[in-house]
Amino acid sequence: MKHQIITISREFGSGGRTIGKQLAQKLGIPCYDEEIINQIAEESGLTKEFIRESGEYAPSGSWLGNALTGRDLYGRSINDAVWNLQKSVIQQLAEQGDCVIVGRCADYILRETADCLTVFIHASLEKRAERIVKVYGEREESPKKRLQDKDRRRKAYYQFYTDVKWGDVRNYQITLDSGVIGIEKCVEILADLYQTKREK
Amino acid sequence: MKHQIITISREFGSGGRTIGKQLAQKLGIPCYDEEIINQIAEESGLTKEFIRESGEYAPSGSWLGNALTGRDLYGRSINDAVWNLQKSVIQQLAEQGDCVIVGRCADYILRETADCLTVFIHASLEKRAERIVKVYGEREESPKKRLQDKDRRRKAYYQFYTDVKWGDVRNYQITLDSGVIGIEKCVEILADLYQTKREK
Repeated sequence: MKHQIITISREFGSGGRTIGKQLAQKLGIPCYDEEIINQIAEESGLTKEFIRESGEYAPSGSWLGNALTGRDLYGRSINDAVWNLQKSVIQQLAEQGDCVIVGRCADYILRETADCLTVFIHASLEKRAERIVKVYGEREESPKKRLQDKDRRRKAYYQFYTDVKWGDVRNYQITLDSGVIGIEKCVEILADLYQTKREK
Repeated sequence: MKHQIITISREFGSGGRTIGKQLAQKLGIPCYDEEIINQIAEESGLTKEFIRESGEYAPSGSWLGNALTGRDLYGRSINDAVWNLQKSVIQQLAEQGDCVIVGRCADYILRETADCLTVFIHASLEKRAERIVKVYGEREESPKKRLQDKDRRRKAYYQFYTDVKWGDVRNYQITLDSGVIGIEKCVEILADLYQTKREK
């Protein structure tokens, strides 16, 4: 039987990463998130901060403009290099055994090679604003503005590198509103779904 | 405590109606689907067939053209009359007690007045094509074409009468791919979520 991979896409501030970590712990399998960034950093020599941002978010400002500038003679950019490394790291991890992978377009990257439970976690702007202030603290910019900017840039990144419409219900086997359902219950539902697939 | 309403929006052929019926049976609460059509038919004198189609689907052909023709002096059309009756019937049903309501924009109609678990059921075109041939039999038109036409018209209807983007993940507390997860498991997950909300 193929390894069972759980991919978690999420809106910033929805608690998707926390759900991934708790789920993996409950199932006794690894959760990859920071590990992917570390490995790409090691292989590329780029900083973790750069990879954290550039492997999921379009740059601020005009994304298309940015995407088309800074390319070498073959049309490759540093963002493309991160994308290619990200693809290969994620594919390697998925080959090692069952795991949870948070974000980083893993659902798209593994769509043809792995057996994935594809999950999307979201919540209302209000609930996410509450959460990011609690988790990351206050910033000069309002929490809602931070969220809208993050949402916009993540969506643009997905549209550029994949043919998946980020947040379109048809791309996910299950989507959950963590603000209404609660993180604990989300973990429980996903653990149960994983077990059911495993028993088949 | 307010009544708990479960609204099920679904792609045609995804088994959303079957899930609604089995879920209601499991929970010992009513499932409204055909009942809504009957009640509107009784109050309006229109045929059930007309209401079944016109309360969820934009007409074939140019929907905007159709939506703007056939209106009386006050700009009202027969579709608007069905929409208004549908709203009032659904609101009355939601006031009577816990229930499952399948389709008919119930999620939108009840968004401000009831405590809803908002669900969306979908499946791949292949799985749905298989299912509609099994349930409704062969037709002259190919199952995929029938599905694409239904999807397009339901989406157009939602866009005209609500400000909800049909199938956008952010409008639902939970969405499930019935083709992957299976009807039985969908029912189990939703029954569990309802019970958890009820116990709160």
